[in-house]
Amino acid sequence: MQATAVLLIHCPDQKGIVAAITDFLHNNDGNVISLEQHVDPNLGHFFMRVEWELTGFGISADKIEDYFATLVGNKFGMSWQLHFTDRKPRMAIFVSKASHCFYDILQRYSSGEWDVEIPVVISNHEALGPIAERFGIDFKVFPINKANKAEQEALEKELIKELNVDFIVLARYMQILSDDFCGSFPNRIINIHHSFLPAFKGARPYHSAYERGVKIIGATSHYVTPDLDEGPIIAQDVTHVSHRDDPRELVRKGKDIEKRVLSQAIRAQLEHKILPFGNKTIVFH
Amino acid sequence: MQATAVLLIHCPDQKGIVAAITDFLHNNDGNVISLEQHVDPNLGHFFMRVEWELTGFGISADKIEDYFATLVGNKFGMSWQLHFTDRKPRMAIFVSKASHCFYDILQRYSSGEWDVEIPVVISNHEALGPIAERFGIDFKVFPINKANKAEQEALEKELIKELNVDFIVLARYMQILSDDFCGSFPNRIINIHHSFLPAFKGARPYHSAYERGVKIIGATSHYVTPDLDEGPIIAQDVTHVSHRDDPRELVRKGKDIEKRVLSQAIRAQLEHKILPFGNKTIVFH
Amino acid sequence: MQATAVLLIHCPDQKGIVAAITDFLHNNDGNVISLEQHVDPNLGHFFMRVEWELTGFGISADKIEDYFATLVGNKFGMSWQLHFTDRKPRMAIFVSKASHCFYDILQRYSSGEWDVEIPVVISNHEALGPIAERFGIDFKVFPINKANKAEQEALEKELIKELNVDFIVLARYMQILSDDFCGSFPNRIINIHHSFLPAFKGARPYHSAYERGVKIIGATSHYVTPDLDEGPIIAQDVTHVSHRDDPRELVRKGKDIEKRVLSQAIRAQLEHKILPFGNKTIVFH
Amino acid sequence: MQATAVLLIHCPDQKGIVAAITDFLHNNDGNVISLEQHVDPNLGHFFMRVEWELTGFGISADKIEDYFATLVGNKFGMSWQLHFTDRKPRMAIFVSKASHCFYDILQRYSSGEWDVEIPVVISNHEALGPIAERFGIDFKVFPINKANKAEQEALEKELIKELNVDFIVLARYMQILSDDFCGSFPNRIINIHHSFLPAFKGARPYHSAYERGVKIIGATSHYVTPDLDEGPIIAQDVTHVSHRDDPRELVRKGKDIEKRVLSQAIRAQLEHKILPFGNKTIVFH
Repeated sequence: MQATAVLLIHCPDQKGIVAAITDFLHNNDGNVISLEQHVDPNLGHFFMRVEWELTGFGISADKIEDYFATLVGNKFGMSWQLHFTDRKPRMAIFVSKASHCFYDILQRYSSGEWDVEIPVVISNHEALGPIAERFGIDFKVFPINKANKAEQEALEKELIKELNVDFIVLARYMQILSDDFCGSFPNRIINIHHSFLPAFKGARPYHSAYERGVKIIGATSHYVTPDLDEGPIIAQDVTHVSHRDDPRELVRKGKDIEKRVLSQAIRAQLEHKILPFGNKTIVFH
Repeated sequence: MQATAVLLIHCPDQKGIVAAITDFLHNNDGNVISLEQHVDPNLGHFFMRVEWELTGFGISADKIEDYFATLVGNKFGMSWQLHFTDRKPRMAIFVSKASHCFYDILQRYSSGEWDVEIPVVISNHEALGPIAERFGIDFKVFPINKANKAEQEALEKELIKELNVDFIVLARYMQILSDDFCGSFPNRIINIHHSFLPAFKGARPYHSAYERGVKIIGATSHYVTPDLDEGPIIAQDVTHVSHRDDPRELVRKGKDIEKRVLSQAIRAQLEHKILPFGNKTIVFH
Repeated sequence: MQATAVLLIHCPDQKGIVAAITDFLHNNDGNVISLEQHVDPNLGHFFMRVEWELTGFGISADKIEDYFATLVGNKFGMSWQLHFTDRKPRMAIFVSKASHCFYDILQRYSSGEWDVEIPVVISNHEALGPIAERFGIDFKVFPINKANKAEQEALEKELIKELNVDFIVLARYMQILSDDFCGSFPNRIINIHHSFLPAFKGARPYHSAYERGVKIIGATSHYVTPDLDEGPIIAQDVTHVSHRDDPRELVRKGKDIEKRVLSQAIRAQLEHKILPFGNKTIVFH
Repeated sequence: MQATAVLLIHCPDQKGIVAAITDFLHNNDGNVISLEQHVDPNLGHFFMRVEWELTGFGISADKIEDYFATLVGNKFGMSWQLHFTDRKPRMAIFVSKASHCFYDILQRYSSGEWDVEIPVVISNHEALGPIAERFGIDFKVFPINKANKAEQEALEKELIKELNVDFIVLARYMQILSDDFCGSFPNRIINIHHSFLPAFKGARPYHSAYERGVKIIGATSHYVTPDLDEGPIIAQDVTHVSHRDDPRELVRKGKDIEKRVLSQAIRAQLEHKILPFGNKTIVFH
């Protein structure tokens, strides 16, 4: 795979945006691999993802940000992110005791399905340490409790900074992060919640689903914000259940959805396909 | 298709229930077509649906209820419903202005997919009258408003009684039924709600789904109780949506799910496969 | 909804295509509503759908074709289709005896869900005539048999031409069209086949599915070519089945998928979102 | 969980079967946990799965087989399997180089989701040895080629016998088993094929799917018979794809379905819920 650049752009909708961007690329001999745009007519807002080959592009990688700002971005009042696919994203994983999402991530990582670095796994329990070890990944325990939460989170933040982590994945991490911690990584923490939000927010959603007698259960991956289970949704999926499924069986069926939905969100993040806007996401193809 | 009898049974779980029921049928030369049982271990409660051929059965149809009560049902403290498939269920449809569920029902009815009588369509608007007329079904308008609600509902109840209606289908009927009306037909009114309950109860669920940025929308058919959108769920289904779908598009996609889920519930009702228990349903295969 | 123009374009992939097209629109004050492009790296081929507002566009509608050809299309060796959304597409429906797809189409048509003209329904049977009549649509019977096939198809072709039909929908039409007829309307005849192709081509697919013991059945909408059930696939969907489903039940479950999949294909056709290429389709969002 | 006995029964349909079985259990103080029966009206054949508690049952576990044969089974010409849930099934896994299904199985095994013994992993390659080692499972390489196939398979059969293996799982094992090997383990070898059979039998199904331009891909788990990809289907699932998905992407998406479908089949096998009959399966709930 050739190295490419990816721009994720949004701005108020106006005439000539697409032409301005494609001209910028064309005038500098950029070969467009993929372009997807979207206008939300209710908001009058424009969204775009464009990817082009770095080889042969007339502007060197380290100057693209600057040139794009001057020649296009600032004129249209754009917000944008610039990514390069020859730099591996760095992802930290937070786990507690459940191993299903963790293994699913590790298998994709170790088989080369994903192009990612995992510099550390962080946990509030020792339980999954041996698994991390088998895969040769650093495992750090931060034994968080009510009393030491601020202090432990500060240490976690320091480690994450030091390791140049791009984003954090909560792979069934059973601790609620403080507002301060959430606020330190806006749209950079991906959680998997074990219900199809907004139904069954908070604790024990499968038990609530059982009590309510639903015929479908689901899982939701979303960016974490200080409002519990209220952040921008990235992916959701569901499965059919029946009266035969007690809470234990719902938990079992749910795990398979959780694995799938969390991995789907991580993959979109790794491919720079998610553009958060307000409390929603644009997920490009 | 041969005429059959169907028993829907539930009672506290205890030893020997299945044997007692199958003996009752076998001793009277009943040929079992289908038997499905379920025990909810959390509730310690037993549920069963059994269907057998009437031809050759040693007890005449009009005495089965009595014999079953004496020989089996009362001993085990059972609750049960007895149905005969050679009697067509009678279903009243309530509509307002939306035609998609209505047409879907009428097509299944008129093509013979369903074995059902539709003695009347009731509406609070004139709009869909011509459609009912095309299909040769009586259409009655009850122009309900705040002031006349009690009086109009009383007339509706009278008509439903007079027509020997077994159950009512709210095919996107846009009036909230009074507690009194709901209470008059317990587990005999099927509604289609245009969200995956318990998410987005009440009005304008597609707009709420758009605001929340969900990646899945759904529909739910349920028995109507005085608690709005809180009755026992019969069937649910969903479809994937994306940032490209504005509320208008969600409404359009949702209609297809509503048709499907409502028809699924009606079919289960017609085949005597739904056993409501508390605020849930057992839906046999 | 404002009137828009839609261009469906494909050509060998090369640098500068997107910029050339967006410049053409921008230079003439075209406001792009939606743009989607795709490159098939295996084929080295470029595909695009772009839609822009006609109001304010600097080139009058009747000259767009000519200008685009001269200024962009011919330079890049493009093939393209140009559509205007203020012209209603004209669709002929072919039916036999099954009514489920037919009703589904008619409901969407009569409720205004689709922006389409249906100048005629053509059948080889009288059976569904009364339904067409109820909806006020012309119904013509062509009693095709082996002996008169060529002659009857010639009459059908004449009628279709005379009525300015844009495309034909085979809504469970149970006659195989001749190669000549198929060849007269390339990528303009949409069929619904009652299996997930390429499994179970030809007659009685639900019976074959039952014999094979599959756990999933499906339906496929595709453009008709002289090779039976081998044309470009537009849409597919499936449903789970089990050992409990005999062929009669598979047929019943299948009807719901057929309705859904055929309507999905028709909608994509009406919105000018399908770009056939070789034996495949690009279906834009 | 209490120890239970499971009977899987089939025989020509006749009156009194259910009563005879439930009487047998009831007369010996058996507490039925779950009973599911099915009659195929086309074949006139009866199928049943019944599970009851061993504690308190009047016949000791080692005599149930004999008593059931004498008192019920032989009278009705039944075929049956008897299983006890307090005996862990023993499963051998065959792998080649792909790790996705293998990891999925190992995660379920090591987290206790499944009640199973895995006495050995067999492979024709060294590649996945280190993974088996991490999980503490014996890994044996049989370097099969055209010349040594009969001899190597003989050694495999010997090992499987020696280890008391109940059934074999081919977790993307890329060797075709000989007719002799298949015949030695009828309905005891579960394969995962990477297409929705009967479409795309044989090699490289994702490439064939790409060539055909399907909008859905799938996976199928089935019992292995000497006829390649023609054995009784246990489970199938699918996912939607589009023109954007090249063969590489189809392979990636397909892996997720393969994992899911294979694990679904294994679970049904472990819970004694699959009853093969002819070239089909009854999969009880």
